[in-house]
Amino acid sequence: MSGWGRERAARDARIEAGRAHAAGKIVTAANVVALLEAILQPDDRVCLEGDNQKQADCLARGLSQCDPARVHDLHMVQSGIVLPEHLDIFEQGIARRLDYSYSGPQGARIARMLYGGHIELGAVHTYLELFARYFVDLTPNVALIAGVSADRDGNLYTGPNTEDTPTVVEATAFKNGVVVAQVNEIVDRVPRVDIPGDRIDFVVEADRPFYVEPLFTRDPAAMTETQILMAMMAIKGIYAEYGIRRLNHGIGFGTAAIELLLPTYAERLGLKGQIATHWALNPHPTLIPAIESGWVKQVHCFGSEVGMDRYIRERSDIFFTGADGSLRSNRAFCQTAGLYACDLFIGSTLQIDLAGHSSTVTQNRVAGFGGAPNMGSDPHGRRHPSDTWMKAGREAQVTGDPALMRGRKLVVQIVETFGEGLVPAFVERLDALELAHKIGLELAPVMVYADDVTHIVTEEGIANLLLCRTADEREQAIRGVAGYTEIGRGRDRAMVERLRQRGIVRRPEDLGIEPLDADRSLLAARSIKDLVHWSGGLYEPPAKFRNW
Amino acid sequence: MSGWGRERAARDARIEAGRAHAAGKIVTAANVVALLEAILQPDDRVCLEGDNQKQADCLARGLSQCDPARVHDLHMVQSGIVLPEHLDIFEQGIARRLDYSYSGPQGARIARMLYGGHIELGAVHTYLELFARYFVDLTPNVALIAGVSADRDGNLYTGPNTEDTPTVVEATAFKNGVVVAQVNEIVDRVPRVDIPGDRIDFVVEADRPFYVEPLFTRDPAAMTETQILMAMMAIKGIYAEYGIRRLNHGIGFGTAAIELLLPTYAERLGLKGQIATHWALNPHPTLIPAIESGWVKQVHCFGSEVGMDRYIRERSDIFFTGADGSLRSNRAFCQTAGLYACDLFIGSTLQIDLAGHSSTVTQNRVAGFGGAPNMGSDPHGRRHPSDTWMKAGREAQVTGDPALMRGRKLVVQIVETFGEGLVPAFVERLDALELAHKIGLELAPVMVYADDVTHIVTEEGIANLLLCRTADEREQAIRGVAGYTEIGRGRDRAMVERLRQRGIVRRPEDLGIEPLDADRSLLAARSIKDLVHWSGGLYEPPAKFRNW
Repeated sequence: MSGWGRERAARDARIEAGRAHAAGKIVTAANVVALLEAILQPDDRVCLEGDNQKQADCLARGLSQCDPARVHDLHMVQSGIVLPEHLDIFEQGIARRLDYSYSGPQGARIARMLYGGHIELGAVHTYLELFARYFVDLTPNVALIAGVSADRDGNLYTGPNTEDTPTVVEATAFKNGVVVAQVNEIVDRVPRVDIPGDRIDFVVEADRPFYVEPLFTRDPAAMTETQILMAMMAIKGIYAEYGIRRLNHGIGFGTAAIELLLPTYAERLGLKGQIATHWALNPHPTLIPAIESGWVKQVHCFGSEVGMDRYIRERSDIFFTGADGSLRSNRAFCQTAGLYACDLFIGSTLQIDLAGHSSTVTQNRVAGFGGAPNMGSDPHGRRHPSDTWMKAGREAQVTGDPALMRGRKLVVQIVETFGEGLVPAFVERLDALELAHKIGLELAPVMVYADDVTHIVTEEGIANLLLCRTADEREQAIRGVAGYTEIGRGRDRAMVERLRQRGIVRRPEDLGIEPLDADRSLLAARSIKDLVHWSGGLYEPPAKFRNW
Repeated sequence: MSGWGRERAARDARIEAGRAHAAGKIVTAANVVALLEAILQPDDRVCLEGDNQKQADCLARGLSQCDPARVHDLHMVQSGIVLPEHLDIFEQGIARRLDYSYSGPQGARIARMLYGGHIELGAVHTYLELFARYFVDLTPNVALIAGVSADRDGNLYTGPNTEDTPTVVEATAFKNGVVVAQVNEIVDRVPRVDIPGDRIDFVVEADRPFYVEPLFTRDPAAMTETQILMAMMAIKGIYAEYGIRRLNHGIGFGTAAIELLLPTYAERLGLKGQIATHWALNPHPTLIPAIESGWVKQVHCFGSEVGMDRYIRERSDIFFTGADGSLRSNRAFCQTAGLYACDLFIGSTLQIDLAGHSSTVTQNRVAGFGGAPNMGSDPHGRRHPSDTWMKAGREAQVTGDPALMRGRKLVVQIVETFGEGLVPAFVERLDALELAHKIGLELAPVMVYADDVTHIVTEEGIANLLLCRTADEREQAIRGVAGYTEIGRGRDRAMVERLRQRGIVRRPEDLGIEPLDADRSLLAARSIKDLVHWSGGLYEPPAKFRNW
């Protein structure tokens, strides 16, 4: 039996080494580098917390200042590669290997570094998939996380931006790892305990509050009539037809437009209470008018959104909140909710091919997936029926014993035929495949695979891929909504007309929608200021969204 | 803005009403009925904690003793229907509607009650799927949970059997619900904080410790040579061929036999370190010899197992343990790990049809699914490659752009051709379909669908369904391993031989396995007592497994 217990002993030794730079559990910002050099060891798996929203930025700066002679060859296992320091450490030799999920702003630099051999890539995951591996083969030895406040026992308040933290801490603390939390302030008593103190080894009082990106704020003022038209089609042609109540929205303007049309256009269609009642969604400011109009029953959130905290606090009837009154978000549970409890995922993408595969990867950027592939997939393990899900299943099923009928998740791509810079959204072949070849990825970075996507919405119409019976029909259905792109112009017009007669391709007029009605006056809010008004002054938009 | 905040106010009123029967948060066992009658309201969604392992049995008894005039028409949303009280409350009118996941011992009674109209069924879920709905449309108003101990502030120690508790509490406490915990004892200070006290409203000191079922203990003495032969085939023909490192096992004797052959048969094949290193698994006693022989790197657990606590405590190098030294299990994370981080699920079933659909439902029992459909499904949202997963993907993919190649999860059914009572495991049509028709289920209770299962192992051989290119090939591959069942005797012998030449059907001799070698002497442990010896006396089997 000797030989057992080494991992626990090694953990105790790290903590002992770290204690030299701490007072109890408390570490000053000035001592961060010394602490990290004391507790980290070469080849450690390290989770430096950061996703598409909050960042443990003080600890990121500290890590990037460590001496590469002492701290090197780390294996980073984390949701986001977002801050410059997240990549600096690879150039410095502090880190060597990377497993991650999301990279917005650093997508181009990651691609260059992968191509240059500066990063040994494990894989690009979805959030939930990476969390899963934290418990199996990518368990962190050290977690560097962020919270709002902590007491001297380490009890941690993560507040509205709880996000990934409980998951990261659980995987690390219960497998003999070391957990370091940066907090904005040390307090005598935290407003609520998001993480019990016996899972936190060190608390760093950061030099400034942790950074949060307002990623889910879409300014209604920037919404176009094309986006409004697409939103009308989605509401009438998909939400109403399938009776979609439980859903998740991506972050584009198309879905934000849907949110703003619920209390206006959808209300006139008599859909209140029939659609869009239960959400797995961040607190989108554009959902405020629907909430205030009584459309929304419940919202569970991955994270929070800058400026929404006071509003959420006063809307605990809708949001999940804690004993302190503020939001409790949880990315792992919300991703699980998006996977198994929602009937619809609708999001945007940059490229769609002729089979329906889509990707947000372009020739020079590895953006990462975030949550889209998880929520934009049909979970075969689902066993509860809903009318929405069964209707989609009936449309998809062509043969077989009807007693074995099952449902399908609705996975919708909503895109303008020409995206930003007039780049066509429809392509013969995804750039992702070329990029994968160039930088040596074993698996091409496809966001949603063709066999999961059920509908494509563009300004030209809706393609229902569930009803397609052959690859040829599928291709023509896609071409049939691809507008004036080269893909769209390459359509077989007669076949597209036949698909239209079968309801596989539907134009605005087929849905009883007059494109000229797609007017900005339909938006429940036409500006950020309108959203503030709707909220009764509770929504406090960040400065960059204010022009008053 | 008036009108908002009602949910929080209603919660506060319930707690106020409950306080009349409590001293602070503490409630005596004698006051449970009064407490429940005070806090529950008609039509409440209630989670009465209980899964396939631990049970909040004191609270279940209390609920069943409530006055149906005061507490009625509850909507039960819970993992397990296991105790008689779980169904008594439906007969009494205390509960009306049911959403659940698992029902071992009560499967026959549920079927009768559904048929008699005594239960309004929502759906039969997998665990993870029901957890997902806790955050969307099945959020509990009241959660009745079980822990080992609590302090007077409500800080809860759930210990080795943490299981579903953190998930249930998170969904309830953060959505203005009321949480009542039964504990074995009230203490001054809990050994570790599994749930912070600010999420727990009432603590009931139970009249006896909560019940735990030793569901994952398989006595090696009961293992047959047929099971050993199947285990040898699985190891050599699947584990070795695909290099499976990350995996989950079901609870049958077939998979327990695999565990016991790792340090013997698999070791002789030179597979140590090559297979079965990282697990999402309960602490199966039959895994002890493999752990002690250095085969296992890490195990994350759904729950604990009776008698394994001391052993786990001394093996924190392998298991997830807390600051107090004992196991930290977590069903939600382990199910997520099984879904997204494992390359293989292998389990048993009662019936397999000619397409490969399987079910544990028989004509008179609705057993529920537990976790099998979740782990026994190919997650389309997975984006990280492994050699195992990519090899399976290559075998399955027949057409299409090779640049779009992706992997497949291995989902294996291991069954004897004739099960208990010599009932054939292979059937023309699943009994589940008949039962669904009889009791009016919208969705037939299929455990694993044909499009997810990749291999079937019987004593006659292995059928590799990934390599089948037509429905006909698939049917003959299944018939080809179905032995002397009617399905097996109905095979096209010439075609099965052709499938054998293509490696789709493999006999023991094709794998270089001599059936006569399948001897009990291959088992690393041949009795429960042997397991105790392997554990150095740390494993303490429950009385029913002791014969010394």
